Amino acid sequence: MTYTLVLLRHGESEWNAKNLFTGWVDVPLSEKGTEEAKRGGALLTEAGVSPDVLHTSLLRRAITTANLALDAADLHWIPVKRSWRLNERHYGDLQGKDKKQVRDQYGEEQFMLWRRSYDVPPPEIELGSEYSQDADPRYAGEPIPRSEALKQVLDRALPYWESEIVPDLKAGRTVLVAAHGNSLRALVKHLDGVDDETIAGLNIPTGIPLVYELDEETLKPTNPGGTYLDPEAAKDAIAAVANQGK
Amino acid sequence: MTYTLVLLRHGESEWNAKNLFTGWVDVPLSEKGTEEAKRGGALLTEAGVSPDVLHTSLLRRAITTANLALDAADLHWIPVKRSWRLNERHYGDLQGKDKKQVRDQYGEEQFMLWRRSYDVPPPEIELGSEYSQDADPRYAGEPIPRSEALKQVLDRALPYWESEIVPDLKAGRTVLVAAHGNSLRALVKHLDGVDDETIAGLNIPTGIPLVYELDEETLKPTNPGGTYLDPEAAKDAIAAVANQGK
Repeated sequence: MTYTLVLLRHGESEWNAKNLFTGWVDVPLSEKGTEEAKRGGALLTEAGVSPDVLHTSLLRRAITTANLALDAADLHWIPVKRSWRLNERHYGDLQGKDKKQVRDQYGEEQFMLWRRSYDVPPPEIELGSEYSQDADPRYAGEPIPRSEALKQVLDRALPYWESEIVPDLKAGRTVLVAAHGNSLRALVKHLDGVDDETIAGLNIPTGIPLVYELDEETLKPTNPGGTYLDPEAAKDAIAAVANQGK
Repeated sequence: MTYTLVLLRHGESEWNAKNLFTGWVDVPLSEKGTEEAKRGGALLTEAGVSPDVLHTSLLRRAITTANLALDAADLHWIPVKRSWRLNERHYGDLQGKDKKQVRDQYGEEQFMLWRRSYDVPPPEIELGSEYSQDADPRYAGEPIPRSEALKQVLDRALPYWESEIVPDLKAGRTVLVAAHGNSLRALVKHLDGVDDETIAGLNIPTGIPLVYELDEETLKPTNPGGTYLDPEAAKDAIAAVANQGK
C-alpha cells in the first residue's frame, strides 16, 4: 500500500509578473495565476485525485491557489491546516527589490549564489522595514527567520512535515500541500533524497499538481520525482525556466 | 470582560437570484454575492474587528464568502473549521424547485408554513434524487437530515456551538461564523432567547457582519440583537425583505 501526497505550487503572483523578490511579502495572484489555480483543480478532477486534507502556508498566493483549485475540484469543503513553516523562502533584505537591479548592483555571481546556493542566505532584513514581517500578527510568537537559503527552509519545514503532514498520510488521507517554489523544493529534496547540488537545478512548475505515492513503511516515493498531472505542460514549463538562465 | 462573536451570512448565490429553494444544494455565489463578501471584509477592517478563527458550513457560498471577506480583511491566514452542522436548512423535497411554482402548486398557506413555521419541515427529499446529498462524500458517516424546519437546524447546530465554537470563545478568540440565513437565525435564537413565534419574523441581511459581545459567564449578549457593522445598510435590507411579503 502507498500513501498519496499532492504538491501544488501557487500560480503566478503579481510580483512574479513584475520580477521582484517576493519571499514572505504577501502579494496576490495575478490574473494568470488565478487561471492556473483553477486549472490545477480541474487536473485533480480529471485524474481522479481527491485530497482529503489541505496544508498551506500563511501567504495568500498559496491560500488563494488552494481555494480556487479545490473549488474547481468540488473539494472546497475539506479540512485545512496552515503554517508559516510552509511559507516561501524568506529572501531577507532582497524582499521587495527588483531582480534585475539586484543583479546589476551585486553582479551575476553573487546574484546566483543568493538565488541558487543551498545554504548561503541573502543579507538579513532590517526589522521594522517596509517588507519585514516582524510585526505581522500571523507570526506572533513564532521563531521566524530574517533571511533564508533553501537549507533553512528545509530545516523549518521538516518539523511541520513530521508533526502535521505525516500523521495525515499515515491516517490514509490523501494530502494536498499548496505552497511555494522553495518550500516544495525542500519537501522534494527530503522525499527524493536529492543532494545539495542537484536541488539547485530542480524547478517545480506553477499550478500543475505533482503526485507522489509514498511507501507506507519508509515514506519514500515509489515513483521517484513524482508524477505531474499534466506531464507535457510540466516539461515545457521546466524547459522554459532552464532557458531563462541562458 | 466579553467575548466577541461575528456572524456573517453569505452573499447572494446564483439560486437566490433565480428564486429557487437551495438548502444543501451547493451553488456558487453570484457576481453580486462576490461583491457583498468583499465588502463584508472591508467592514471588518473599518470597524477594527479582527477574527482569530473562522467556522463555516460545508457549502461553497459560505466558504467562498468567508475566503473573500477574510482576504479583503488581510485575515485569509486564520485557522478554519467547517461542519455540516452550520449548513443552511435542508429544504427537503423543495430543494431545486422554483419558489413561485411551489407557492402556486401548494397555495400560500402551505408555502408560508414550510418557509416560516418553526417546526414543520417540508416533505423529505427522495434518496438518490438530483438534489439529494446522501451520496456526497463530504457527509459520509454523518447523521444528515432529509428535511428540516428551523427547529431541526437549531437542534443540530447547538452541539457544534457547544463543542467547537464556545471553546474558541472561552479561549479569548474572536470567532467568525460564516454561514446561512437559517443556521445563523438558529444561533441568534439561542443567543438572544428569541421565542418560536418571533424568530419567524427575524431576517439577517447578507454580507453585513453582525457582532455580538457575549458575557464571559453566561455567554449571553451584552448587546442583545447584536450590532451590524453597517447599521443603515442592514436596516434597509431588513425593510426590503419585510416588504417582499406585502
